[in-house]
Amino acid sequence: MGSGHRDCPGTESEDAGKASACEGCPNQNICASSKAKGPDPDIAVIKERLSSVKHKILVLSGKGGVGKTTFTSMLARGLAQSEDLQIGVLDVDICGPSIPRVMGLDGEQVHQSGSGWSPVFVEDNLGVMSAGFLLGSPDDAIIWRGPKKNGLIKQFLRDVDWEDVDFLIIDTPPGTSDEHLSLVQYLQNANIDGAVVITTPQNESQIFPPTTGGVEQMADEMKVPFLGKLPLDPRIGKCCDEGTSFFEEFSDSPAAKAYQHIITGN
Amino acid sequence: MGSGHRDCPGTESEDAGKASACEGCPNQNICASSKAKGPDPDIAVIKERLSSVKHKILVLSGKGGVGKTTFTSMLARGLAQSEDLQIGVLDVDICGPSIPRVMGLDGEQVHQSGSGWSPVFVEDNLGVMSAGFLLGSPDDAIIWRGPKKNGLIKQFLRDVDWEDVDFLIIDTPPGTSDEHLSLVQYLQNANIDGAVVITTPQNESQIFPPTTGGVEQMADEMKVPFLGKLPLDPRIGKCCDEGTSFFEEFSDSPAAKAYQHIITGN
Repeated sequence: MGSGHRDCPGTESEDAGKASACEGCPNQNICASSKAKGPDPDIAVIKERLSSVKHKILVLSGKGGVGKTTFTSMLARGLAQSEDLQIGVLDVDICGPSIPRVMGLDGEQVHQSGSGWSPVFVEDNLGVMSAGFLLGSPDDAIIWRGPKKNGLIKQFLRDVDWEDVDFLIIDTPPGTSDEHLSLVQYLQNANIDGAVVITTPQNESQIFPPTTGGVEQMADEMKVPFLGKLPLDPRIGKCCDEGTSFFEEFSDSPAAKAYQHIITGN
Repeated sequence: MGSGHRDCPGTESEDAGKASACEGCPNQNICASSKAKGPDPDIAVIKERLSSVKHKILVLSGKGGVGKTTFTSMLARGLAQSEDLQIGVLDVDICGPSIPRVMGLDGEQVHQSGSGWSPVFVEDNLGVMSAGFLLGSPDDAIIWRGPKKNGLIKQFLRDVDWEDVDFLIIDTPPGTSDEHLSLVQYLQNANIDGAVVITTPQNESQIFPPTTGGVEQMADEMKVPFLGKLPLDPRIGKCCDEGTSFFEEFSDSPAAKAYQHIITGN
């Protein structure tokens, strides 16, 4: 039953809603009707809108609290140190947006122009879009089901006026659900360059060191590149809490150098 | 826009799909059709099924990685130390189930009987149900959209044969999305006794102590009881990784006593 999705014929299939794997699936009726048929015309609109974005990178993790948002902000700020690069950050953690805080943009609002929603800028070359900017107060919460989250993600991809951007970094919520499926679906023709998966050792204290070979061995087994290890420097957490740039404040720290190594390869 | 859900007339309203707040909502069509009308008849079935469960407690958090699953397992094991209590744990983190691992039940499968799905038992008085038991291998992942997750949550509430249980503890994924809305909707007539919200200090290292008064002040402002603080003992993480009981292995530790204090009030 847990593997039912593997045999899902897909919403565009002739068998949609009619295959044996569809039995018991809550989407069976809508798939069996003609409503789910055909590619979404917005996928082409999104491709056109994002044609001015050179590279698109997703940041993912299986579990929460491993540092996705911290990594996203550090990657964006690290890249933005090159003044000739234009960087965008898109926060699709709709029900728990924390990019505004770590970027020092709490309380900012999105502005609309004739060409779409304008990102909020941290620096001249670093723009940000987040569901957090749509809330009246930082204490407000967004309590939405998947379809409504998917609608906002589509708006973010289709309606934000990024202009010319070299790297668009997309921060996602923990796990593998609507947000991730929608991103991959909506960006299917817009070329995602890659995904960075963030993980932490099971036991950060290292009092009981890992015995399974850890993430390097896993990356090796799964034949994906292992990008590097990042030290836990409490000053990174402090900078994220305060919305300031760790690279500017602690440029010579081992943590800053470890990030630089992952970002530039040097 | 972010506050659109506040003005949602509700799916059972005459205005469903027709109010001004419905404009642009991805659910508008289904709400405007008659499909969404009327209460779900399964809500009464769930009430009847859970009538043998005395207390139902949700475990929630805004962000991931703060220790919801650790707390859930410690609360369940702590309560189960009283042999005259019967405890159930329901893991509704469908896309990231980790309850099986921390309960030492990796690789277990759910069994079906004439009266429904049988929980997997850790002890005679401690039964567990999780999406993790439906996977072929611990390395498999569930990548499901909201509606499919909601369908499984309904099955968990309607079809699991808990028998007589004193406390059913429900572990949820991070954030505020489908899982939380579905739980509250499906359990609306089944009396949820309370919810425990887990949080961590912004900066666990305490090198930079919090300056805002922290969670105690927040609980005071929001007029919800502050249940207590739990120390970070790395041996808890070790027990969770190994699926063993911290209370049995380290019963005299300050952390075990802090949990006992929250659980029993003594």
